[in-house]
Amino acid sequence: MAKIMAVNAGSSSIKFQLLEMPEEKVIASGTVEKIGSVDGSGKPLNGIVTLKYNGKKEETTPVIPTHAEGVQLVLDALIDKQILKSLDEINGVGHRIVQGGEYFKDSTLVDGPDGVVVNKIADLADLAPLHNPAHIVGIKAFYKALPKVPEVVVFDTVFHQTMPEEAYMYAIPYEWYTKYGIRKYGAHGTSHKYVSQRAAELIGKPLNETNVIVCHLGNGASISAVEGGKCKDTSMGLTPLEGIPMGTRTGNIDPTVVSYICNKEGKTADEVVNILNKKSGYLGLSGRSNDARDVTEGMNNGDHRCKLTFDVQAKRVADYIASYWLYLGGKVDVIAFTAGMGENLKHLRQKIVARLAPLGVKLDEKLNDTFSDERIISTPDSKIQVWIIPTNEEVMIARDTVRVANIK
Amino acid sequence: MAKIMAVNAGSSSIKFQLLEMPEEKVIASGTVEKIGSVDGSGKPLNGIVTLKYNGKKEETTPVIPTHAEGVQLVLDALIDKQILKSLDEINGVGHRIVQGGEYFKDSTLVDGPDGVVVNKIADLADLAPLHNPAHIVGIKAFYKALPKVPEVVVFDTVFHQTMPEEAYMYAIPYEWYTKYGIRKYGAHGTSHKYVSQRAAELIGKPLNETNVIVCHLGNGASISAVEGGKCKDTSMGLTPLEGIPMGTRTGNIDPTVVSYICNKEGKTADEVVNILNKKSGYLGLSGRSNDARDVTEGMNNGDHRCKLTFDVQAKRVADYIASYWLYLGGKVDVIAFTAGMGENLKHLRQKIVARLAPLGVKLDEKLNDTFSDERIISTPDSKIQVWIIPTNEEVMIARDTVRVANIK
Repeated sequence: MAKIMAVNAGSSSIKFQLLEMPEEKVIASGTVEKIGSVDGSGKPLNGIVTLKYNGKKEETTPVIPTHAEGVQLVLDALIDKQILKSLDEINGVGHRIVQGGEYFKDSTLVDGPDGVVVNKIADLADLAPLHNPAHIVGIKAFYKALPKVPEVVVFDTVFHQTMPEEAYMYAIPYEWYTKYGIRKYGAHGTSHKYVSQRAAELIGKPLNETNVIVCHLGNGASISAVEGGKCKDTSMGLTPLEGIPMGTRTGNIDPTVVSYICNKEGKTADEVVNILNKKSGYLGLSGRSNDARDVTEGMNNGDHRCKLTFDVQAKRVADYIASYWLYLGGKVDVIAFTAGMGENLKHLRQKIVARLAPLGVKLDEKLNDTFSDERIISTPDSKIQVWIIPTNEEVMIARDTVRVANIK
Repeated sequence: MAKIMAVNAGSSSIKFQLLEMPEEKVIASGTVEKIGSVDGSGKPLNGIVTLKYNGKKEETTPVIPTHAEGVQLVLDALIDKQILKSLDEINGVGHRIVQGGEYFKDSTLVDGPDGVVVNKIADLADLAPLHNPAHIVGIKAFYKALPKVPEVVVFDTVFHQTMPEEAYMYAIPYEWYTKYGIRKYGAHGTSHKYVSQRAAELIGKPLNETNVIVCHLGNGASISAVEGGKCKDTSMGLTPLEGIPMGTRTGNIDPTVVSYICNKEGKTADEVVNILNKKSGYLGLSGRSNDARDVTEGMNNGDHRCKLTFDVQAKRVADYIASYWLYLGGKVDVIAFTAGMGENLKHLRQKIVARLAPLGVKLDEKLNDTFSDERIISTPDSKIQVWIIPTNEEVMIARDTVRVANIK
């Protein structure tokens, strides 16, 4: 029996779950937000610490100058609330890391706050400038608070490292690959891994014989083709910009648009790519919101661009599903929907699955409408089962932490 | 009976065919190259005029200062060689135009060398800076030589104008569409139209009931989904850079690569996009050549990157075919290969069709190997017929010229 902290550290936030393993039971969870917040004159502002445990949700608003103080606040709260008797009960800390490049082929035990692993994650920051540096701050904060507890890094990219070369290579000057590592890495790997494994369990088939197309549709969205538990292709690329349209990201587009807008609006390529990341997707096309609920409301009120937004996304998702169905040799056991929109937006699922009729996929409209958790939503005669499988990245992080740090 | 000149004018060249209509018989064809060539000191260099007729091929190397002189050289030669008795025999001139934007929904009669049509083509040069200005020079050169002969413009984009909004809209800030016209336009439309019409003829089915996936695989390459004679989707986008990898073009890629290379190599977005257009694709990935014959030779000699280049392209072509099969409701009569590589590279066709087995598509290896022209290459029990259909854009230009200019 072991208690594991699963951590997702961002530039000004830390999300965590404390899990009891191997039961995979969540003992507590929470967030630390607005770390290092200051007002215009540099005066510290209050942050927010949220803690959920025993069905309760508590919030405090202390000043949180750094991640280290944020971690200490969380650990103190775990003792104060008698969730833990002692911090010695924490057996391991697992960190979500966005970019592991080609270097990290599996989750990895960290060799100290300034060791080889942390340095390598820092080297890869070029490919994930917003995320990797923040993850390192999180790792160091936990080392400061819990110096003796093993830490494990769990990469979003590792699950996609099994893609064949023909799937991950771009047709670019080859030296861009050898010098800069430009290739498809994918993202959301921990989610794709969890959902594809869970899908095999749910249909009672050995993982190595089960093929799954996972549609992770959140504010960020990606699709993967998983063959016998191994990723064969995924829609995100060098960065999470590639693939299908998302909340604020455009997905695939003619790269000429970047230089075209640079010239038209006197912007730099960084500025245009920033717009493709933050002002495009649902937000750009609908002109209303990055939040699918707002766009749904617009559609229901007859707004053409809101309807178009869903049509465009449903079409591109169906395009990928067809490509991946073919790439999996036409043998697909489960199409799984996960993440915010995948789990909650029934009309989007309906729109996507309707397009899959030529593959013999049939939605059970009633099951699709019913609100509940993990469930099948296809008809018994559907040639491919369609499931909603709520993702659980924290469980995957805790599992890998136990495995890699060899925690008994 | 009418004689039509089908013209493709580039920045320093003019290609032409003289066709007898409605027989669609080629009376003569040729090229004018190196128009306006000068050496380092500005001294005019010789150009090349090639003329094919009656099974003969003749070449001359006069100085050709401008397109107007190039056109006059061609017309003089047609009389000299007694291909025509008089220039009055030419009833119409049809010009290939790369970009017609959303404005041109059909081939169009030109209202003079400085009329509305020419001005509109000039306005659209923003979307085809290398091509549209050269086309206009060609139009004006023919007006100068043949002032009374009607000229018709035949756009590469028109065939794709039937795409539904969900297929041509990008998930970008909507004002980029309204202000700058940024959307998917596609290219090679005249080829896709010819091949899809010819496919219906070949299988003896009415055009409006025939669905075709056209794989135009040349140094530029694009795929289209054609439903009942109308384009429903195509792989090229705002420009011919989008889609599958080509001789020197990358096709789809994470747009972040543009800003990434700008930062790494101190380049402008235009410079990076230029590399994605001219130094990528087959050339970049194989490191050997943009010419598939050279890359084939490399592959046959065991070069890994040459083999990878074909694998990458075959995979991306198969991805599109699966997506388009689904988008056509699973009802596809013909998959047609055309253009240089599509017509001549049997191992690439073999690699692509092998991936389509889950769709019930079967190649007849012997028919695929045999060198001949237009032919079926699938087995009788293949669920979709696979054909090689040599493209013929000149015939389409001549047909449209006769129709639009109402030539009897």
